[in-house]
Amino acid sequence: MRFASILSARRLSPLVVAVWFALLASAAADDSLASWNDGPTKQAILEFVKATTTEGSPAYVAPADRIATFDQDGTLWVEHPLYTQAMFALDRIHEMAPKHPEWKKKDPFKSVLVGDRAAMAKFSEGEWAQIVGATHAGMSTEDFHAIVKQWLATATHPQFQRPYTELIYQPMLEVMKYLRANAFATYIVTGGGQEFVRVYSEDVYGVPVTQVVGSSIVTKYEDRDGKPVLMREPEIFFINDKAGKPVGINLFIGKRPVAAFGNSDGDRQMLEWTQAGGAARLMMLVLHDDAKREFAYGPADGLPDTKLGTFPQALMDEAKQRGWTVISMKNDWKQIFPFSQ
Amino acid sequence: MRFASILSARRLSPLVVAVWFALLASAAADDSLASWNDGPTKQAILEFVKATTTEGSPAYVAPADRIATFDQDGTLWVEHPLYTQAMFALDRIHEMAPKHPEWKKKDPFKSVLVGDRAAMAKFSEGEWAQIVGATHAGMSTEDFHAIVKQWLATATHPQFQRPYTELIYQPMLEVMKYLRANAFATYIVTGGGQEFVRVYSEDVYGVPVTQVVGSSIVTKYEDRDGKPVLMREPEIFFINDKAGKPVGINLFIGKRPVAAFGNSDGDRQMLEWTQAGGAARLMMLVLHDDAKREFAYGPADGLPDTKLGTFPQALMDEAKQRGWTVISMKNDWKQIFPFSQ
Repeated sequence: MRFASILSARRLSPLVVAVWFALLASAAADDSLASWNDGPTKQAILEFVKATTTEGSPAYVAPADRIATFDQDGTLWVEHPLYTQAMFALDRIHEMAPKHPEWKKKDPFKSVLVGDRAAMAKFSEGEWAQIVGATHAGMSTEDFHAIVKQWLATATHPQFQRPYTELIYQPMLEVMKYLRANAFATYIVTGGGQEFVRVYSEDVYGVPVTQVVGSSIVTKYEDRDGKPVLMREPEIFFINDKAGKPVGINLFIGKRPVAAFGNSDGDRQMLEWTQAGGAARLMMLVLHDDAKREFAYGPADGLPDTKLGTFPQALMDEAKQRGWTVISMKNDWKQIFPFSQ
Repeated sequence: MRFASILSARRLSPLVVAVWFALLASAAADDSLASWNDGPTKQAILEFVKATTTEGSPAYVAPADRIATFDQDGTLWVEHPLYTQAMFALDRIHEMAPKHPEWKKKDPFKSVLVGDRAAMAKFSEGEWAQIVGATHAGMSTEDFHAIVKQWLATATHPQFQRPYTELIYQPMLEVMKYLRANAFATYIVTGGGQEFVRVYSEDVYGVPVTQVVGSSIVTKYEDRDGKPVLMREPEIFFINDKAGKPVGINLFIGKRPVAAFGNSDGDRQMLEWTQAGGAARLMMLVLHDDAKREFAYGPADGLPDTKLGTFPQALMDEAKQRGWTVISMKNDWKQIFPFSQ
C-alpha cells in the first residue's frame, strides 16, 4: 500500500493511523542500522536496545548506567595487514632513521629499514617494545598528538590506498550512533595506545577523548623552559588487553558495560565481564569472513590463521556456549566502509 | 522598591521591566554562591564563568572543554585530625583484629590497636602502606565498595560527631553546582583512593563515578567459582598526588582543566598545569584559617603546622606570584557546612 493511497483513503480510522505511525517508527529504527542485513544479528541489537531502554521492562537500565564498550582494531576499523599504530611506528622509524645511523646495523630497526617482512613478522614483544619506545616516547603528549595527526593526514593503507581513518566499518558506526541516540555512552576500549586513539576518536567515531580507554606508557610531569609538560617515557604503564580490559574498564570508567563489542581473543574477558553484570546484556564479536570486501581470518571455522587479531576456535566455542552473537561481515553487513556501495 | 509596588505601578515601561528582570537574573546568579561573602574571591569565580561561557568573549571555552577539577581532602571536606580514608583504615584494623592475633605484637598494627597516637603520628609511608594493604586489598572491588558504604553509614568524626559525608564544605558544593549549571564537567582529582571516593561521589558531591580520578592499587581479573571478579592486590598502581595529578588528569580525563581547586602542596602541579593551558584560567586554594568553625593550619602566614594537608609558605608565595586566588575560610565563607548556620 503506497503512502498516497493511504492519504486519499476516505475510510481511514484512528486505529489504522496509529498502526501506520507505529510502522513508520519501526522503519525509522531500522534505518539507523541501514548497513545491516535483516536477520538475527541486527535483531539482537534492536531487541537489546528496546529491552534496556523501555521503562518498566525487567531489563531496563537507567541512562547513567548505559555503558557500551568497543574494541577498535578489527572491530571498528581494519587491522590487516598490520595494526594501524604499528604502521605508524614503522613509518616513524623510516622518518627518524637519518638521525639514527646506528639503526642500519641494529635490529629490530635494521629489518624495518630494509623492509625485511619475514624478519618483521617474527618480531618478539621485546623487539616491538623497542620500536614503540623509539617512536612513541621521548616527546611531550602534545608533540606526540601533533606527530600522529600529521601522519594520519598523509599515510594510506597499502591495499585500499585510502587514509586509515576512512577504513572504518559503517555498520559499527551506525551501532555507536544508534546506541548514543538511546542515551548510551560509547567508549573505545582498545589494546592500542590511548593517546594515539585520542587524536582522532572524536572526529572519526564521535567518541570524546574522555571516553577512550587504552594502553599507555609512563608520562612524567616536567618543567621545560618554565612551561610544564607531560613527557612520554619508554616504559609501559598499562596494557589494556585480554584480562587487562576489565581492569581498564573499572579503572577508567568505574562502571560495568551493558554492551561490549570485540573481534578477537583480546576481547574475551571484556565480554565475560559485561555478561556477568546482569540480564539482557549484549556481547558481540565481529568475524572477519569476507575475503572479497575486506579480509578473512580466524582461525575459527577453518578461516586462515593470520596470527594477528586472532579469533580462535576456543573463542567461537565460548561464544556459542555463552550465547554471544557472532557478526559475520559477509552475511550481516550490507556495506563495509562508509565509502563503498 | 518593593515588588508589590512595581507590580502596581501604572507607568511601568518595557525598559524598566527589562532592567528589573536583568537585576533578578543577576541576583539569581549571586544566589548560586549564597554561602560566599561578597568580595574579590567570589567575584573571581563569577568573572571566570562569565569570561569562559560568553560566546564571542576572547576567553570563551566550548562546553566540551569546560573541565573543572577539585581536590577532595581539605578542599571539599574536612581532613583533620586525619584523612577520612585513614580513619576508615584504622577502624578496619580494629574490626579485623580478632582474625589477626599476630597484630597484637606487630607494628604498625599494635600501635593502632592500643591507640598509641604518638607512634601513629610517626608512621612511615611503608607502615601506612602495610595498613592500606591489610585493609584495602584481598577482596573484590564490589566487596570493597560494600565495606566502605557500611563504614560511612555508621562512622562519625571524633570532633564534629557527625558522619564524614556531612563534613563537606557548602561553599564548594555551590561552586560545583554553579559550574555544572554552566556546562562544566566537575571532576574530583584526589590523592585518596579512587575506589573509596567512588562509593559516595555521586550522592555527596553530584560527581559520577566516571569523573573520579584518584590513587589506586593493582586489580586482577580472576574467576571465582565461575564468576569473574576484580581482586584488589596489596600493591600500589598509581599515586595521584603532587606531580602525579597532571599525569592522572591526562590519563583519566585526556583534557586539561580550565579551573582547578586545591588546598595543599599536593595540588601545586595541578594548578600549574591548569594555568599553563591558556588565558582566563581559574586556580584556587582553600586556606584553613578558621580555628573557630573548622581548623586552622598552614604553616603559611604563621598558621600552625599540623604536618597534614600542609599549605607551606612556598605555596602561598607561588600563589601570589602566579595570581592564584587563596580562599580564606574565615573571611570568604559565610557558612562552612550544609548543616551549620
